[in-house]
Amino acid sequence: MNTFGNLFRITTFGETHGPAVGVIIDNCPPGVELSESDIQVELDRRKPGQSAVTSPRKEDDICEILSGVFEGKTTGVPIAVIVKSKDAKSKDYENLRGVFRPSHADFGYEMKYGHRDHRSGGRASARETVSRVIGGAVAKKILKEQFGVNIWGFSQKIGKTEFENVDQDFIEENPLRMADREAFDTTLKLVETTRDDGDSLGGVMEIRVDNPPAGLGSPVFGKLEAELARAIMSIPAIKGFEIGEGFAITDKLGSEANDPFVAEDGKTHSKKNTNGGVLGGISTGDTIWFRAAIKPTSSIHKQQQTANNKGENIDLLVKGRHDPILLPRAIPILESMTALVILDHVMLQRGQCGI
Amino acid sequence: MNTFGNLFRITTFGETHGPAVGVIIDNCPPGVELSESDIQVELDRRKPGQSAVTSPRKEDDICEILSGVFEGKTTGVPIAVIVKSKDAKSKDYENLRGVFRPSHADFGYEMKYGHRDHRSGGRASARETVSRVIGGAVAKKILKEQFGVNIWGFSQKIGKTEFENVDQDFIEENPLRMADREAFDTTLKLVETTRDDGDSLGGVMEIRVDNPPAGLGSPVFGKLEAELARAIMSIPAIKGFEIGEGFAITDKLGSEANDPFVAEDGKTHSKKNTNGGVLGGISTGDTIWFRAAIKPTSSIHKQQQTANNKGENIDLLVKGRHDPILLPRAIPILESMTALVILDHVMLQRGQCGI
Amino acid sequence: MNTFGNLFRITTFGETHGPAVGVIIDNCPPGVELSESDIQVELDRRKPGQSAVTSPRKEDDICEILSGVFEGKTTGVPIAVIVKSKDAKSKDYENLRGVFRPSHADFGYEMKYGHRDHRSGGRASARETVSRVIGGAVAKKILKEQFGVNIWGFSQKIGKTEFENVDQDFIEENPLRMADREAFDTTLKLVETTRDDGDSLGGVMEIRVDNPPAGLGSPVFGKLEAELARAIMSIPAIKGFEIGEGFAITDKLGSEANDPFVAEDGKTHSKKNTNGGVLGGISTGDTIWFRAAIKPTSSIHKQQQTANNKGENIDLLVKGRHDPILLPRAIPILESMTALVILDHVMLQRGQCGI
Amino acid sequence: MNTFGNLFRITTFGETHGPAVGVIIDNCPPGVELSESDIQVELDRRKPGQSAVTSPRKEDDICEILSGVFEGKTTGVPIAVIVKSKDAKSKDYENLRGVFRPSHADFGYEMKYGHRDHRSGGRASARETVSRVIGGAVAKKILKEQFGVNIWGFSQKIGKTEFENVDQDFIEENPLRMADREAFDTTLKLVETTRDDGDSLGGVMEIRVDNPPAGLGSPVFGKLEAELARAIMSIPAIKGFEIGEGFAITDKLGSEANDPFVAEDGKTHSKKNTNGGVLGGISTGDTIWFRAAIKPTSSIHKQQQTANNKGENIDLLVKGRHDPILLPRAIPILESMTALVILDHVMLQRGQCGI
Repeated sequence: MNTFGNLFRITTFGETHGPAVGVIIDNCPPGVELSESDIQVELDRRKPGQSAVTSPRKEDDICEILSGVFEGKTTGVPIAVIVKSKDAKSKDYENLRGVFRPSHADFGYEMKYGHRDHRSGGRASARETVSRVIGGAVAKKILKEQFGVNIWGFSQKIGKTEFENVDQDFIEENPLRMADREAFDTTLKLVETTRDDGDSLGGVMEIRVDNPPAGLGSPVFGKLEAELARAIMSIPAIKGFEIGEGFAITDKLGSEANDPFVAEDGKTHSKKNTNGGVLGGISTGDTIWFRAAIKPTSSIHKQQQTANNKGENIDLLVKGRHDPILLPRAIPILESMTALVILDHVMLQRGQCGI
Repeated sequence: MNTFGNLFRITTFGETHGPAVGVIIDNCPPGVELSESDIQVELDRRKPGQSAVTSPRKEDDICEILSGVFEGKTTGVPIAVIVKSKDAKSKDYENLRGVFRPSHADFGYEMKYGHRDHRSGGRASARETVSRVIGGAVAKKILKEQFGVNIWGFSQKIGKTEFENVDQDFIEENPLRMADREAFDTTLKLVETTRDDGDSLGGVMEIRVDNPPAGLGSPVFGKLEAELARAIMSIPAIKGFEIGEGFAITDKLGSEANDPFVAEDGKTHSKKNTNGGVLGGISTGDTIWFRAAIKPTSSIHKQQQTANNKGENIDLLVKGRHDPILLPRAIPILESMTALVILDHVMLQRGQCGI
Repeated sequence: MNTFGNLFRITTFGETHGPAVGVIIDNCPPGVELSESDIQVELDRRKPGQSAVTSPRKEDDICEILSGVFEGKTTGVPIAVIVKSKDAKSKDYENLRGVFRPSHADFGYEMKYGHRDHRSGGRASARETVSRVIGGAVAKKILKEQFGVNIWGFSQKIGKTEFENVDQDFIEENPLRMADREAFDTTLKLVETTRDDGDSLGGVMEIRVDNPPAGLGSPVFGKLEAELARAIMSIPAIKGFEIGEGFAITDKLGSEANDPFVAEDGKTHSKKNTNGGVLGGISTGDTIWFRAAIKPTSSIHKQQQTANNKGENIDLLVKGRHDPILLPRAIPILESMTALVILDHVMLQRGQCGI
Repeated sequence: MNTFGNLFRITTFGETHGPAVGVIIDNCPPGVELSESDIQVELDRRKPGQSAVTSPRKEDDICEILSGVFEGKTTGVPIAVIVKSKDAKSKDYENLRGVFRPSHADFGYEMKYGHRDHRSGGRASARETVSRVIGGAVAKKILKEQFGVNIWGFSQKIGKTEFENVDQDFIEENPLRMADREAFDTTLKLVETTRDDGDSLGGVMEIRVDNPPAGLGSPVFGKLEAELARAIMSIPAIKGFEIGEGFAITDKLGSEANDPFVAEDGKTHSKKNTNGGVLGGISTGDTIWFRAAIKPTSSIHKQQQTANNKGENIDLLVKGRHDPILLPRAIPILESMTALVILDHVMLQRGQCGI
């Protein structure tokens, strides 16, 4: 199922070694100013080769809008956007044919479909997220311009180290998309050392939605945290999702965990916002915040044992250029999926309740 | 949105103080033997008053099948099941009218809908999960009988204590649905003390799906872990979801985290199953396992500060009978939502790939 | 699939000889005044026994609201409504077990599901339309009160006779829901004669939606006429659907068929409205009108030949009380399905375009 | 809403004067041999310029597969196919800006979206059906190869003349896709005369599905005839749909209309198949047949009156190359939509009932 969303909907396609990846954005509000450059800025935040700690592959990921925009504005009909592959020439992946790389999707795809594209994971490659970022760029723009909603994220933990400080300005200044200026140098060194050792690191990302409308979310199965969880957990390599204090709240008693409402200056809000801006599946208007765990890149430059589809145990050394850490490039993807959920629920709310 | 599932679908209704709660199960396979007693056994695992550490409310939650079963077997048409409220007489909830209880859904519902049932949360009460357990009971039965799949769960952490041992036989023998026999006495004492103090505890639950078919999951947006995350995060009070090692895997290097495939006795499987039985959104055939964090019950017997819909800050003492800890009654709900997802994806897989 | 609608959604259940039929209305706008009597008035228009030319069965079809309404107003959460069967005692239908009645759904149900309720068709009985009328009653009320939209219908052809005059006031005054006062007496006589002969009649119904908003419909697959066609063709015994001039427009040249737009008094509208108020899948604001063909009641009081599930050809005389003509009771059902589509698309339009 | 289907799903995009039109086919069964030529053969049946009675525009409509096929076989992941526009250079459509062509979608689009592509209707042009034919070509191939189902269609009425004879072999031999060899010459002459006069003709098409599995269709809202009606009525210019005898059955008494089942040679089937192969929303295994009315091409070469978006009544002469009759090119589109519905329901049936 490659369609996401109820009203604001994306449908995506594309394998990493195919001629193109792309997306159809359906049901977009009409009259929105939109050009390739609005999308390109987000694709550039996701693309490989943007720093020494991302994969050195050279892909420019230039997007082309094929439909849905007329004289610079959306018309309400489907917006198709594709990114052609620079380098679609058939490389030699014969050594991966029939091989199940450790902690990769190969085995599941073979079990499910029987016939699969073994070249770098085909559809299971993170290259499919190009399509998500395109959709997210449009959603983010609408949210910002029409509703004043701002979505951003940062690396909250890398390897074993959690960061404390949150300096929003710093995030786009550093290649790890950290928000903790002080911790940056040490962490960069760790990432570089790990990369040079042919190994990889994981971490935790935090996403924030500032100034969301209250009332978003469609209980009981379309609760906002459920929709966000589904969106985020559908991103490659994500292993965990928590909203607000998440797992940590289980250390507390109810009397400590509870978050009173406070009426102040004619507005009511949560005092501590420990629930992450969502209660009972509906946004309260407080900043929505959640975290997601991403595992260390499974593609590493070390010899590993595994099996193939002939029932043989084999030794494997995967070649190619990989990210030593996924977080910097994943953050725009998480922001995109978040934007898709939030805009979808703004539209659902408008549809049902007429605001 | 009160419908869940793609092929095996439930649609639920009901507020805690309404005349009934219930569910329509749509698209159920025909020819399945089904009676009220198959469902009742799961409802009894969820019902209040089942032990000294659940809410002492007396609800028997007797289910009635209204359609879809003929001469003891499902006919493939919608199965409607309702549970009438024993005690629908209007209690005095006037003191809660317009009040936003701390960490409850009241505020969001008022923002979203304007007009709401303030009595114990109305639709936002956990009473709606009766409907989920009914649907889950049917899904579990089909999964077990037709596919040999077994779904079970237990309390993996209560308050600050994580449990190590997993003794499956012990789970249904103790009121906390713990799987760690040794840790039980101490934990029970903690729960009782907390209850007597008018306070509450949270914790973490682990769910396991034994013997799942390989190939379940519909990338990229219907990945199995995404569907499970959505299902679990839609349950009241759940604040986090992680699959396999989840957040903990971020402490590891890629070379430590990676899980090789092993061919053994003509079968290929994951060596460590640290990814939780799912890779790239598709089940590998290994046991699926995940964890969910549930916050301490927000309804506590202590005076709290909060606000009401007149913009006043008030003191609040919520009366009523509440669970000092949600885990024991939540576990059947998590199992139910898991069963709904797994059966749905078995049917999706059959639909697409013909197995 | 027993759920209908994108935003305003109904999910229905119930067999004719089960204990109840009912519906869950999901995503209803909040704050709408609603009571059982609002629904009952439409159920009474559909119920059997309302005249000498409907089935003489005695069913009062009393509805009960189980959820979603609080202190007389909708709360935005699911509205469940059921109608208990008066007369659920098991009659003797043994002679129909395994029999495939001519032009009935029995055979298809047996092929599809294997196991089926053979008593009067079970789920395939028109009794399921009780649920549709409940959902439609709510949709109609909202459309009328909030958007000034009025939906009504009448018998446009009975047997071989097409009617010319349309006197809206006459419709609810006569048992055939005809709008042609002059043609009534002759037609009633025809129906009575046919009934007394144990036979049945079919006909064509016309539905009109007065004062619809312009802009409804979601091309290309959610075109308004497509959604209406699906809604109407899902009603038992309906064999054809046409919008505007429908099949008759094929007799014309393009220059005759084309319908110019006219600007008049500051408003632009279709001159002839031969397209039925919809062009390219979107409402123009002109009255929406369409027709549907309904076949003669298949249950007749005559001996017929048919086969059973043992591969035997048999003679069959179906007992019971049947409608000699389905149109009078079907019209409220068509109106209901129309209301569901229109309100759904008002909400979709509001969701996407913000009006 | 530009997605169609439950399990076998297409999502389409593209305007007539945009750079490309295309489709994403989702959830396709894996392992199906597929190449561009399998699709091209159907596109060629739809393309303009194929005869003297279709639009003389020269579009070759060459398709390119961008994803989902690997080494000549589908992999179960989304199949994206695009057709680039040959001639995307901006022609002069300034005279149509703000104009509402008679019986065209212009007005509705302007009401709905505010901002629209006025060049030849943009998204409302029949050019979008290229995407449908691509999806249909894949569905047809799977239905034929894996289930032995054959879908075909023909012109059953052109202008005022209904045809009687059905010679399947003749259909692809003549430019009007008529099945009546005798009536061809006269009809061709009529079409040519009408064309030369700058006018247009409508008609009725009949579609047949030979050898369908019994049991397809998902009552009550996913009844097969309802799904077909929706699919067909979503095609541009279609004004009516009827299954089996359709509107004509209303001329009969129940005793004449009823169609007995007959057990013969170990198989049970409908004697007359007057219901069109579907009863109660489920296929019986008999040939499925239905008809659809298509209006005369609204684009004619005659001066017409109409209005524009400044509230002015104007005279309009639309230039360009148009089809004098839509039927020949529409038939492959109807076949395509039919194939999409049938395959979708084969997969749904497999998903629910496990066949």
